[in-house]
Amino acid sequence: MRTIEWDSSRKFVMIIDQRSLPGRFERIPIRSAPKMIHAIKTMTIRGAPALGVATAFGMALAAFRCKTRDERSLAQAVIDIGIELMNVRPTAVNMRWAYQRIKSVCYIGFGSADKLRLAILTEAQNIADEDVQTNLAMAKYGSALIVDGDTIIHHCNTGALAAVEWGTALGCIRMAHEQGKRVHVLVDETRPLLQGSRLTAWELMQYRIPFEIICDGAAGYFLSNGKVQRVMFGADRVAANGDVANKIGTYPLALAAWTNKVPVISVCPSSSIDLTILDGKQIPIEQRDPDEVLRLSVDHQGIAPRDAKALNPAFDVTPNRYVDSIVTEKGVVKQPYGRNLLRILATEG
Amino acid sequence: MRTIEWDSSRKFVMIIDQRSLPGRFERIPIRSAPKMIHAIKTMTIRGAPALGVATAFGMALAAFRCKTRDERSLAQAVIDIGIELMNVRPTAVNMRWAYQRIKSVCYIGFGSADKLRLAILTEAQNIADEDVQTNLAMAKYGSALIVDGDTIIHHCNTGALAAVEWGTALGCIRMAHEQGKRVHVLVDETRPLLQGSRLTAWELMQYRIPFEIICDGAAGYFLSNGKVQRVMFGADRVAANGDVANKIGTYPLALAAWTNKVPVISVCPSSSIDLTILDGKQIPIEQRDPDEVLRLSVDHQGIAPRDAKALNPAFDVTPNRYVDSIVTEKGVVKQPYGRNLLRILATEG
Repeated sequence: MRTIEWDSSRKFVMIIDQRSLPGRFERIPIRSAPKMIHAIKTMTIRGAPALGVATAFGMALAAFRCKTRDERSLAQAVIDIGIELMNVRPTAVNMRWAYQRIKSVCYIGFGSADKLRLAILTEAQNIADEDVQTNLAMAKYGSALIVDGDTIIHHCNTGALAAVEWGTALGCIRMAHEQGKRVHVLVDETRPLLQGSRLTAWELMQYRIPFEIICDGAAGYFLSNGKVQRVMFGADRVAANGDVANKIGTYPLALAAWTNKVPVISVCPSSSIDLTILDGKQIPIEQRDPDEVLRLSVDHQGIAPRDAKALNPAFDVTPNRYVDSIVTEKGVVKQPYGRNLLRILATEG
Repeated sequence: MRTIEWDSSRKFVMIIDQRSLPGRFERIPIRSAPKMIHAIKTMTIRGAPALGVATAFGMALAAFRCKTRDERSLAQAVIDIGIELMNVRPTAVNMRWAYQRIKSVCYIGFGSADKLRLAILTEAQNIADEDVQTNLAMAKYGSALIVDGDTIIHHCNTGALAAVEWGTALGCIRMAHEQGKRVHVLVDETRPLLQGSRLTAWELMQYRIPFEIICDGAAGYFLSNGKVQRVMFGADRVAANGDVANKIGTYPLALAAWTNKVPVISVCPSSSIDLTILDGKQIPIEQRDPDEVLRLSVDHQGIAPRDAKALNPAFDVTPNRYVDSIVTEKGVVKQPYGRNLLRILATEG
């Protein structure tokens, strides 16, 4: 079952509601682009690859809901919605990448609004289908880096829920497990939204991969005690020099791993690599609602004094020197990233 | 108002119930040593200095509840309870230190059980009174390290609630604020038990010191962006070489600070320094109930899948090279700690 999927008969999108997990597994319909924007804002759908696909399907929804017969007006309406979608979460560059693919289709000129609608939908479906293939290729390359008996610290959620199917870092772990390697995962809970304890733990239970949840702050303890062989996470954007923007908490985790000589592996599709940005300092960092820190996502119960304030940067940047490997669908990239990321992007997929 | 206090007329201990903060401020009576053991276990009272005093008063409670007229039986009963108290939380060495002070009184020989009871209570009250003086002296030394305009990341709770009055690291921050220095605190929420967002935030509001709460994983983001001038926390035990055992998450925080050239200050009474232990690797690390990770302390609501497991080390060890200063009531200790901790312990208080 896919995290996000186009319902051809009813012309809308079905997504897994990630807010209600692990308590309840539920698929919900997204019938319009504004509803998709809301689902992305509230992290009902999340994860860099899934967000790329959600952007594309959001633009397809806009194309089918906009009733104009004028192809150029339709193209403009779809592009406008694409910009809105993309701006909801500024750090994950996959949204821009998907937007640009749909925008290119809008500029072709099919001769009718209906033909453009179908072409947009076809491209969105291509993006979704390619995502599955991309994730399988990453899992193949990434699982080869995992050794029988490894204990792996994993940050945030990078599994099937974060993509269309399979996932990035968690996809590699799952593939290694299916290859018969014994793997054990220490699941960073990943405050504030607990993607680790809620989503990654839920996925690992489905795959029957043994794990324990740990607080984000406890990773250093396990790394310094020699209990961990690898640290794995995804990426929301990789700069041209290999700096990795990823879920808040990734940087101190990677730093503690590097200090304790534990290899750090970031797994992401090549669409997460942004050569227009030289280093991580230029990556925009989304600042989310302080209430995510002050309250608990499960029921919005307060955990801080009334009127207390919070800051809630959603991502941080891990300098390239702490990252041992970046796994893409085109292969594994190592230092020096400046040269090797360019080379891998030039490779045929 | 003191966090922990002997009620002379009713011969029991009053403590602030730290589990119900920040929602409700409540003082509760502790009428027996087993009740004190339970309060320590459940972290109704917590914080290394407060735990030392709780151990002493717990032994005093045992002395008054034990009805024997035989001085030696009484001494043995009190010492037995002291060992039980001390073993509830193995990392904080202040509990052993307080136990040993009361034990020394038990060995003096006063000639009657009643005289021993009074001597034990007097010593426990001395320990509590000295704690206030010790904390004031630490605040004086530590506040001198804080500069007007500083933004300080603070981990866990080290305020009045963690001691009898005033506190350790937070006491220094409060003193700097009262001296008219503008200080701004980024409060690590400190999972799993949220001592930062629940207790430190509550204290800072009382003192009218401006702050924001951040997730533990977000400290690296702020440190790497040049927004933070100092990192401050307490200590549960300092080894002879200056390695600092403190609340889980301290090590990755100190590492990220050191990497970004932000001074790290640990504030603790000299009773937290354990010269019998050469380095941090030998400090026993308490492993607490996984439910603290799997559920939320506020109402025990589950945040992880049913049957998920967790690991919950309560402390980690920060290697001495990441610690810029250790502030005690006798003065500020700097590298090399091996020599300078010995020297400061030999200083008259």
